[in-house]
Amino acid sequence: MSCNKIITITRQYGSGGHDIGQLLSEKLGIKFYDKELISLAAKESDVDPEIFEQADEKPTNSLLYSLSVGLYNYGNGFGSMGDLPVNDKLYIAQHKVLKDLAEKEPFIVVGRCADYVLKDYPNVIKVFIHADLEVRIKRALQEYDIEPARAKHAVVKADKNRANYYSFYSGQKWGQADNYDLCINTTHLSIEQAVDVIINYVKVLEEE
Amino acid sequence: MSCNKIITITRQYGSGGHDIGQLLSEKLGIKFYDKELISLAAKESDVDPEIFEQADEKPTNSLLYSLSVGLYNYGNGFGSMGDLPVNDKLYIAQHKVLKDLAEKEPFIVVGRCADYVLKDYPNVIKVFIHADLEVRIKRALQEYDIEPARAKHAVVKADKNRANYYSFYSGQKWGQADNYDLCINTTHLSIEQAVDVIINYVKVLEEE
Repeated sequence: MSCNKIITITRQYGSGGHDIGQLLSEKLGIKFYDKELISLAAKESDVDPEIFEQADEKPTNSLLYSLSVGLYNYGNGFGSMGDLPVNDKLYIAQHKVLKDLAEKEPFIVVGRCADYVLKDYPNVIKVFIHADLEVRIKRALQEYDIEPARAKHAVVKADKNRANYYSFYSGQKWGQADNYDLCINTTHLSIEQAVDVIINYVKVLEEE
Repeated sequence: MSCNKIITITRQYGSGGHDIGQLLSEKLGIKFYDKELISLAAKESDVDPEIFEQADEKPTNSLLYSLSVGLYNYGNGFGSMGDLPVNDKLYIAQHKVLKDLAEKEPFIVVGRCADYVLKDYPNVIKVFIHADLEVRIKRALQEYDIEPARAKHAVVKADKNRANYYSFYSGQKWGQADNYDLCINTTHLSIEQAVDVIINYVKVLEEE
């Protein structure tokens, strides 16, 4: 099946959003971006990718905190953005990368406020993936290197960070259904099933 | 296609939720309940359906308000519920009707906190239908008897009532994606397309 859409996937931690994006990209034959956006943004802005890696999907820290942990960058390059905290630089660079990509070809992107950044493009499908907490803890334990005793805390904290990041840059509420075209609960769905739900949705949308 | 699921549809005013429920019921060959629940609840509780009609999907009013508009019912029948305000009686009666129906057969129900009431039943699919405000105003003008100048106000107010009703009785946030299995934005979908998305979802779910 061919697809001329850009699909943004916002996902709760452990809900399978990354794997869904990857399989969807294979099935639709279009590119997939998750952490890849960081290196593109780093290249775009001439910042060390490792510095951006630390700031990934986190809202701007206070100036004091940024200075104390070395996240504040004293105007080395990156045009007029020299004075901004790293988190903002990363957001702005990813914003530019996403808009440049959107001019070129269909793709799938996970996280990074992409649904908000690309909200005015007519060919964007905004998907939100979520699941019950217990299911997400289980998946997080299988997929990531998390201590079992701290798994619940890690999942809740990761979501809190994502929600803060999203609302900081978009001014919208993360996980509020009206911000998306399609929200899918993966509690009772495999990655393959969730991908099929999205592909069927794209097919129905193209029927009109 | 046969369907052994109960499908609850929560919907923003003017998003097409009622029509989607009705068409879905025809296509799946299972019963459909919207306002029909009021007469079932009235029968169940021996209250005049017209009194329930007024209280439909509204949270309990203050005692003073209930007394002033005659919504307070001085213990006429309905077992131990005689002292409750009408809104609560309706909610409790609908709650009982929904649980009784759920024991018998698959069906589709619109509104009435049904997703919350039936949340512990394993065969329930919780759907939320929403659309952009402009689209909902347009649909509300076509479908309901609303003065054009007051259409926006009417749509916003109806949603506020539904959100209050839902959070009053469920303690959950209306329209928060994690409360549902599937949320669909009907801004760019016809009723038929939205129904197809739900039917495809049911099919995928039954694949497992």
